[in-house]
Amino acid sequence: MSAASPSAPGPLFETAVVAGVGLIGGSVALGLRQRLLARRVIGLDASPEVLREAEALGVVDEVHTRGGEWLRGADLVVLAAPMRALAPLARELAPFLNPSALVTDVGSVKGGIAAEMERLGVRHFVAGHPMAGSERGGVTHARAALLENAVWVLTPTDHTPLTALSKARTLVEQLGAAPVVMPPDAHDALVATISHLPYLASLALTHMVARDERLSLLAAGGFRDLTRVASGDPRMSRDMVVENKGALREALTRFRRQLERLEADLDEPEELLEAAREGKRTRDSLPIVRRSLLPQRHDLVVAVPDRPNQIGAVTQALGAAGVNIKDIEVLAIREDGGAIRLGLETPEDVASAAAILQTAGFEVRGRA
Amino acid sequence: MSAASPSAPGPLFETAVVAGVGLIGGSVALGLRQRLLARRVIGLDASPEVLREAEALGVVDEVHTRGGEWLRGADLVVLAAPMRALAPLARELAPFLNPSALVTDVGSVKGGIAAEMERLGVRHFVAGHPMAGSERGGVTHARAALLENAVWVLTPTDHTPLTALSKARTLVEQLGAAPVVMPPDAHDALVATISHLPYLASLALTHMVARDERLSLLAAGGFRDLTRVASGDPRMSRDMVVENKGALREALTRFRRQLERLEADLDEPEELLEAAREGKRTRDSLPIVRRSLLPQRHDLVVAVPDRPNQIGAVTQALGAAGVNIKDIEVLAIREDGGAIRLGLETPEDVASAAAILQTAGFEVRGRA
Repeated sequence: MSAASPSAPGPLFETAVVAGVGLIGGSVALGLRQRLLARRVIGLDASPEVLREAEALGVVDEVHTRGGEWLRGADLVVLAAPMRALAPLARELAPFLNPSALVTDVGSVKGGIAAEMERLGVRHFVAGHPMAGSERGGVTHARAALLENAVWVLTPTDHTPLTALSKARTLVEQLGAAPVVMPPDAHDALVATISHLPYLASLALTHMVARDERLSLLAAGGFRDLTRVASGDPRMSRDMVVENKGALREALTRFRRQLERLEADLDEPEELLEAAREGKRTRDSLPIVRRSLLPQRHDLVVAVPDRPNQIGAVTQALGAAGVNIKDIEVLAIREDGGAIRLGLETPEDVASAAAILQTAGFEVRGRA
Repeated sequence: MSAASPSAPGPLFETAVVAGVGLIGGSVALGLRQRLLARRVIGLDASPEVLREAEALGVVDEVHTRGGEWLRGADLVVLAAPMRALAPLARELAPFLNPSALVTDVGSVKGGIAAEMERLGVRHFVAGHPMAGSERGGVTHARAALLENAVWVLTPTDHTPLTALSKARTLVEQLGAAPVVMPPDAHDALVATISHLPYLASLALTHMVARDERLSLLAAGGFRDLTRVASGDPRMSRDMVVENKGALREALTRFRRQLERLEADLDEPEELLEAAREGKRTRDSLPIVRRSLLPQRHDLVVAVPDRPNQIGAVTQALGAAGVNIKDIEVLAIREDGGAIRLGLETPEDVASAAAILQTAGFEVRGRA
C-alpha cells in the first residue's frame, strides 16, 4: 500500500502540507484529496478561524497554526501564503522540512522566492505559479476545478534537481493543470508584460480622470474596459508589482518605446494605419476563454432590438436548445438595444446558435 | 403653417440636409423625421447605393449626390461624413449654403472643423459631437434612438452667433440627446484623455505581445479587457487620433507623468498602496451604462456554479420576473463556473433580482 509498491501504486504523496489555506491553497488541498494524490492533507495557517472553516469544508484532514517537528513527516509542502508573507513563511518552516520533501509555492512572482529557498538550503524546491484566480477570495470559494486547465508555470533554476522538477510536473498534471516550464526571470518578464504593466497603465489612466466630475462622467465604454484591472484588490495588486519591480521597469521601458513610436507615427498616417491594423490582428487573436491555455474563438454577435431584457431572450433561446454559452460580452447596450458577443465552445455551436436565434427573429453575425 | 406662425408652430426646420448618410447621419435624419423636426429631410451622399438604401429605409425624403443651388433652400445642414472627408465636404458645400442656415457637424474632433468653417465664412456654424455609436456602422443600422440620452457636445467659438448656438441646442434636445457646451479645445482635450489616449495605450500594449506565441497565449482576462479598444476599425481609429494629435500629445505627456510617478512609487510601497486605493475608488465610480450621461451603478454580482449555461439560468429567472438587465459582464467563467456582474436600472431592481436569484439557489452580492 506504500507509494513504492509496484503492484498497487499508492497516492503520489503520503503527507501533503498546504501552508496558507486561502483560495489557491484550499483549491490545491481539495485537488490533492479529491484526486487521491495524497494520503493525508494537513492545513497550516496562522488563523485558527481559517483552519476551522477549512476543516468544516473538508478541505484538509488535519490542521496546524505554526511549523514544527510534525513537518518532518511531510513529503510535499505547498507554500500558498500571500506574496508578502511567502519569504517569512519559508524562513519559519525551513528548519523543520524533510530534506527529501518536494517543496513548491504558488506566488505570482518567481525570482525572489527561488533565491530565498537557495539561501535557506531547501534543495527540492520548485517554484510555481498557477495562473488561476477568482474575484472571490478565501478558502470558502476554493474548488479543485479552479486549477483544471489552468496554465501552471514551473520555474526551476540551475540548482533544481531534475527529480524534483519531474515530480512537481507530475503533481501539476495530476491536479488537472497544464505545466509550462521556464526560468524564473522569463516568467517574471512575462507576467510583467501581460499583467503588471497593464495594471500600472490602467492605474495611470484612472488617475487622469480622478477628481474630474466631467471626465469621469463621460468616461464609459472603452475606458471602463481599459481600467477594469485598476478595480482589483489594491493591496494584492500593490504587492505583486512591487515584488516584480525589476521586470516591471523593463516592461515599462518597452511600453514607453512603443508609445513613442506610435506618437511619432501621428505624423506618418500610413505607418499609424499599419500599426492599427497589426494591433487589431493581434488583439482579435487573443484567447477569449480566460485562463485557458488553448486560444479559442468561436464568436457569435447578436443584434438586440429595442425591447426590454433581450439578453435574457437570447440566452433563454440558447439555453432551451442546450447550447452552452462560455463567454458573453455586451458590445453596446442602450434602451434601444445594441449587440451582444457570445463565446461558444465549437464552430458547430456557432452554427446551431445562429440558426436558433435567426428563427427567434434575431440578426446574427457568426465567427467560427 | 410656417415655422414663423405663432398660433400653430410648425417644425423647427423647413428643409434639413444631412450630408453623409451613415450610422450617425442616418440616425439624425430619422430623428428629424420621426420627431417632426423638419418638414423635409434631404440626404446628400457621394454614393448612389447609400442613397438608394436610405430612401428604401425611409430615412430621407429626397436625395442628392453632390452640392448645388438646391442647397440654398436648406435652413439646416448637418455634416455627417467620416472625419477625413469632413473638411473637403465643407469646402464643396460652402458656396451653396444659405447664410441664415444653421450648419453643424458630428465629427469626434472639433478644433479643425470650427477653424475651417471660419475660413469658409460660414457664420451660423456650431460644431457638435454626439457621443454615440455602434459596432455596426452604415445607414442600415441607423436608429433615431441611437442619439437618445447620448451626450452631445456643442463647441461654439467666440465667433459663433448666440442665436445659432441656442438653435443647435434646441435641435440636440429635440433629438432626445443631452447637450453639453464647451470650447472646441476643451472637447478635444477631453476625448484625447478618455478615448484617444486609451486607444494608443491599448495599441502599445497589444504590440508588446504581437508575434510572441507564448505571450499572446497566456494573455487573457485583464489583458483582453485592456486591449479591446485596439480591436476597433483601424482606419476610423487612425483618423481620430491623427486629427486630434495636438491634444493627444498633451494627454500622452500627462500619462507619462502618471506612469513615472507610479514607477517611482515602486520604491515607496505605502505611496503605491494609496495610489492603488484611489485608482480603485475612481474606477468603481465610473458609469456602467455605456454612453450614458448619468453615472449609474446598480450592480448585482452572481456566483454561477459548475453547470452548463448558468448565464442563461440567471437571465431566464430575471426575465421571467420582468427584471430588465441593462448590462452584463462575465467576471470569471470556466467549465467550473464563476461570477457574472449584472447592471440593473434601480436599487429596487437589485433587491428584487437578488431575492429572485437566491430563491433560485444562486449566491449573490448586491451593490445598489
